[in-house]
Amino acid sequence: MKKIINDPADVVSEALRGMALAHADLLTVRQDPAVIHRDDAPVQGKVALVSGGGSGHEPLHGGFVGPGMLDAAVPGPVFTSPTPDGVQAAIEAVHGGAGVLLIVKNYTGDVLNFETAAEFAAIEGTEVRTVVVDDDVAVKDSLYTAGRRGVAGTVLVEKIVGAAAQRGDDLDACEALARKVVGGTRTLGVALAAGTVPHAGQPGFTLAEDELELGIGIHGEPGRARLPMEPADALVRRLVDAVTEDLPYTAGDEVLLLTNGMGGTPQIELYLAHGIAAELLAARGITVRRHLVGSYVTSLEMQGMSLTLLKLDDELVDLWDAPVRTAALRWGM
Amino acid sequence: MKKIINDPADVVSEALRGMALAHADLLTVRQDPAVIHRDDAPVQGKVALVSGGGSGHEPLHGGFVGPGMLDAAVPGPVFTSPTPDGVQAAIEAVHGGAGVLLIVKNYTGDVLNFETAAEFAAIEGTEVRTVVVDDDVAVKDSLYTAGRRGVAGTVLVEKIVGAAAQRGDDLDACEALARKVVGGTRTLGVALAAGTVPHAGQPGFTLAEDELELGIGIHGEPGRARLPMEPADALVRRLVDAVTEDLPYTAGDEVLLLTNGMGGTPQIELYLAHGIAAELLAARGITVRRHLVGSYVTSLEMQGMSLTLLKLDDELVDLWDAPVRTAALRWGM
Repeated sequence: MKKIINDPADVVSEALRGMALAHADLLTVRQDPAVIHRDDAPVQGKVALVSGGGSGHEPLHGGFVGPGMLDAAVPGPVFTSPTPDGVQAAIEAVHGGAGVLLIVKNYTGDVLNFETAAEFAAIEGTEVRTVVVDDDVAVKDSLYTAGRRGVAGTVLVEKIVGAAAQRGDDLDACEALARKVVGGTRTLGVALAAGTVPHAGQPGFTLAEDELELGIGIHGEPGRARLPMEPADALVRRLVDAVTEDLPYTAGDEVLLLTNGMGGTPQIELYLAHGIAAELLAARGITVRRHLVGSYVTSLEMQGMSLTLLKLDDELVDLWDAPVRTAALRWGM
Repeated sequence: MKKIINDPADVVSEALRGMALAHADLLTVRQDPAVIHRDDAPVQGKVALVSGGGSGHEPLHGGFVGPGMLDAAVPGPVFTSPTPDGVQAAIEAVHGGAGVLLIVKNYTGDVLNFETAAEFAAIEGTEVRTVVVDDDVAVKDSLYTAGRRGVAGTVLVEKIVGAAAQRGDDLDACEALARKVVGGTRTLGVALAAGTVPHAGQPGFTLAEDELELGIGIHGEPGRARLPMEPADALVRRLVDAVTEDLPYTAGDEVLLLTNGMGGTPQIELYLAHGIAAELLAARGITVRRHLVGSYVTSLEMQGMSLTLLKLDDELVDLWDAPVRTAALRWGM
């Protein structure tokens, strides 16, 4: 294992130290338990959004904390759910009197620990709702997951619901909107090579030089199939087919297309894949109204990518376009 | 080689197609010769900034085209200089009557081809100046380079001079500012593993499992030394020592600290390294007034990072903070 780290046990806390220094004008970072929150939290009268999960998927979630998006993120150890006390600390730090919405990727540990924290918060009189993101069409159940996994679509949920909370939507409205976005979002990913979890010290799985894993999970969980490597045109078509057929997305639909890198794939390949996907969608009569290309929900240095579609309407476009200021996604402020 | 590409010969043109689709509200992308420019170019009365170089370093340079930064970028083939006709086409597309400043990384081919284009433009009556960026302290001469190489510090030059051009500084002022920023910028990088150029089909160099290359170039050119892997604390200290001793940066200085990923290094490792660097600088009495952490000047999927310091004064801070809207760097608009 070659990584720019010290003791694997300290990777998350040391990374958080750097993040705190880099974004002192935006974020407050707490350790033990680890919480990243808006430095102006709590924002009185605003629904507070809290997400989190295992580390190693950066910029998700800490990179999406700030005005117009999350109020707090709770980072667990690498690829490991945060404990309930971290989630509780986040809720306490950002609750501004209008309730808290938890955005949770569908992994058994995350769901359990966020729910536990929500129950404690409820006992203390804080109204907390939970929305589970399960956008990955790859497999029904998986390692660590009952039902579908939550993957790259999570960033779209966080952005859009973050904009709604920022404009003053109440807890009911934010929850309903989150369910709507989750309902309209589908993702499929592919891996070419695994990342290495620091405390494991070796790659999470092994693919042959001519092999890819279709439907990979963001922790390296098995997908649908191991297939021979193929040109980008064929590979991207495979992803577009699986995603569009799932919801389905059909002619006349307007969508946001997210081409997401898994961490170790160069931006030049992501743009290349994005162009193929956008043209395939256009050929099916699906209009790509908004685009996002980059490594937003990663799996350490995994080589690979995912495609996400979100069905848009004018309200979702307005919320997507609304100003946001976070470490990793920023426009209009 | 496992990459999300079709024919290696088409990588750049296919990636540009995707970039054009993803950023249609911001960029115009031309092919043959390849040029990426502001969609509102030329901006009359504004000094136009043009940069470029081999592809494979994304988001540099195309990701930095837009209001407050570059007017155009000229992407060559992967790790290969663009031809003079591409640079000429860029100059013609963005020249708004106030002259053109070329920002060129110090590689022999880039310098030659940008100079040739500048001469042609001069014959046609366009005033063109050239500033060469040579921030890499690793080695004096190198493969492809006489003198020091231009690396991650280039993004700082493009941002700060872009802000000056945007506020209306004339060509003399922009050129002088660019020379000042170059003069105050120093970088050193390290590689843990090489990237693979598509048409080469295999990694550009090989490092043993316990080996790093100190002072790596962004095309995989040899650095100062191959050394045993070491913990991040020691590795980052090595980078900070070399960079601070070079200018030198000393107690009382105020700096911008850029912790740049080479493409295949997870954000969590970059933040971890950034925290170490910032604390080492603080211990030496050097104040980090501005921070930038991310993969901005890459070498395909190379694993590794670089540290860049830029000596700041109030004017440079104001220009750094000024609004910018590009694909990869955006704030305030």
